[in-house]
Amino acid sequence: MSTGTSINLKVEKTKNSKLSQIDFNNLPFGQTFSDHMFVCDYKDGKWQTPQIIPYQNISLDPAAKIFHYGQSVFEGMKAYKDDQDQIWLFRPLENQKRINISSERLAMPAFPKNYFMEGLETLLKIDKEWIPQTPGSSLYIRPFIFATGVGFHASPADEYKFIIACAPSGPYFSGNVKVLIEEKYSRSANGGVGFAKAGGNYAGQFYPTELAVKKGYHQVIWTDDNTHEYIEEAGAMNIFVRIGDTLITSPTSDRILDGVTRKSILDIAKDENIPVEVRKFTVTELVEASKNGTLKEMFGAGTAAVVSPISLFGHKGENYELPEIENSYASRFKKRITDIQYNRAEDKFGWRYLVK
Amino acid sequence: MSTGTSINLKVEKTKNSKLSQIDFNNLPFGQTFSDHMFVCDYKDGKWQTPQIIPYQNISLDPAAKIFHYGQSVFEGMKAYKDDQDQIWLFRPLENQKRINISSERLAMPAFPKNYFMEGLETLLKIDKEWIPQTPGSSLYIRPFIFATGVGFHASPADEYKFIIACAPSGPYFSGNVKVLIEEKYSRSANGGVGFAKAGGNYAGQFYPTELAVKKGYHQVIWTDDNTHEYIEEAGAMNIFVRIGDTLITSPTSDRILDGVTRKSILDIAKDENIPVEVRKFTVTELVEASKNGTLKEMFGAGTAAVVSPISLFGHKGENYELPEIENSYASRFKKRITDIQYNRAEDKFGWRYLVK
Ligand SMILES: Cc1ncc(COP(=O)(O)O)c(C=O)c1O
Ligand SMILES: Cc1ncc(COP(=O)(O)O)c(C=O)c1O
Repeated sequence: MSTGTSINLKVEKTKNSKLSQIDFNNLPFGQTFSDHMFVCDYKDGKWQTPQIIPYQNISLDPAAKIFHYGQSVFEGMKAYKDDQDQIWLFRPLENQKRINISSERLAMPAFPKNYFMEGLETLLKIDKEWIPQTPGSSLYIRPFIFATGVGFHASPADEYKFIIACAPSGPYFSGNVKVLIEEKYSRSANGGVGFAKAGGNYAGQFYPTELAVKKGYHQVIWTDDNTHEYIEEAGAMNIFVRIGDTLITSPTSDRILDGVTRKSILDIAKDENIPVEVRKFTVTELVEASKNGTLKEMFGAGTAAVVSPISLFGHKGENYELPEIENSYASRFKKRITDIQYNRAEDKFGWRYLVK
Repeated sequence: MSTGTSINLKVEKTKNSKLSQIDFNNLPFGQTFSDHMFVCDYKDGKWQTPQIIPYQNISLDPAAKIFHYGQSVFEGMKAYKDDQDQIWLFRPLENQKRINISSERLAMPAFPKNYFMEGLETLLKIDKEWIPQTPGSSLYIRPFIFATGVGFHASPADEYKFIIACAPSGPYFSGNVKVLIEEKYSRSANGGVGFAKAGGNYAGQFYPTELAVKKGYHQVIWTDDNTHEYIEEAGAMNIFVRIGDTLITSPTSDRILDGVTRKSILDIAKDENIPVEVRKFTVTELVEASKNGTLKEMFGAGTAAVVSPISLFGHKGENYELPEIENSYASRFKKRITDIQYNRAEDKFGWRYLVK
């Protein structure tokens, strides 16, 4: 175990592995789950003994506050396996920190770092065979916390459950992504919970996204709720554009998730001497750049989607195509990040984390 | 049964009633639950056979989307019992309609009206003894729907569960309410889900409310997320103020819940020839009215809180006290509404609904 003091982790292994049922060459995203899960309950004001148990249903009182008041936060991480069968994580402490930032905003208790890391690493070693080695695949890891305490009073719960579950997964998107820049609906408010990975942020995006999908797009790009002029982020990705040779992304704020992939791309860009501007930018600017030919690239960045090139954006009934670019920034960033993740290249940033 | 075509409702009664354990003279709000619940599952694209079963735990896959993406909506209603042991509801069709408005915004399937009404009425008749007759008490009714379908892909679930659970309850607030007008945090965005009774809207309010409670207030009054100048609503109540003799409340919008109590108060005010203005109003206006003595009343209105007078509001480090008023609007509205609810007075609006 590589972090912190050892915790009193109880382990109960499954007698019926589902591993043989999985087709690793044909993995959907996040639809099949590994044999075990890490579970820890919060009650009487503290986190109780953590456990690793066979993946199984959870039994909850119908008055548990998760059903009523949306008290839940989550993280998204991936485990990668290299040629020597070693297990790697990518900047896991960023996720460990971020889940507590999310929890604080939702009035939920922080989860201790050593519980998080030791629980995660032990789980990965037990479910090691579930980490795919097929190209583009990985083990998607989902830490999450939700309110189990009961009551119809609209106030924070007094009991919670922390779980880590894992799903061997293929790519999140198949192919290039077409996006619609949103003009009516919004993802988050100033002073709201947009910067947190709170469950409720996602449910609110489904309906506008379904409307966009009906029009032939894959994703919505969220804009500020006041003017719908400023480009913010996508459902599960931060957004970058390249105008001329300059890489532009919006600063994070209380409306925008501080993505690990975004942060990493900014560091790589600096390392590669790519000119970067972290600043607010508008739809108008994008449309103009598209019209005068300076808009070279647009891509999303996130753990699930890695780096996903955008081929087209729609706005006010018009579609704007992105050109096809040789040696694009998106392809360069994707290669550098995944080479680090799968232990195929030097890791000068110290982002790779060996589970041993 | 008073509504629609009859549904194929299965009923299984409890063998162990918890009724004798309840102290009806000492009821908290929403903390003890009646013997039965109404349950209906959505799968394969349709709602399955509804059931009434003993109140019991629910078993869910850890990947059920309720835990991850906050897909849940709810309603809040009350059942009242009169001197002749008759059961009454207050404008139940408003809640039946509203839950479907909420569901649509969260990309969840509508729940059929006849299922809702027949399920609710049958449940109330079975759990009739759970409806308190002690003054100020009622049976709080909680219809709710949440995503049971599984997967870590951020998209709507394919399976849902609809439940109605009930809690014999005393008053939501004890005594007058002190509120803090929010200057930093927000409840909802333009184009967001604020008008829906979506679980996630409530979790986001807990942290700012806890900060306000630490400063000695009970509730936060939400303002618009852009300027924090316009008064919107409270956590579970719409807000009214009285300046001079004029009753003022904010218009509903996509940020504000269209409350049944609010609507009813507007009708009663009209009936009583009280001058009403439904318009946006600002904190500045309130502060000025407080300073020049024209701010006479401020109160919250909601099913749980009924009509709750506000005794003080805080803003930018100052506290503003509301005067004590004889024959206040709040007390008049509260009396008229509760007299209708408990079948103590004429119901000229046709709001009362007999469960027979
Ligand atoms: C709303 C949102 N934005 C951005 C991201 C990307 O963040 P990260 O790179 O840390 O996965 C995610 C997904 O994690 C997200 O949910
Ligand atoms: C946010 C919010 N506003 C207002 C209300 C009041 O609405 P109603 O009068 O329909 O209960 C509620 C509670 O139901 C609420 O949750």
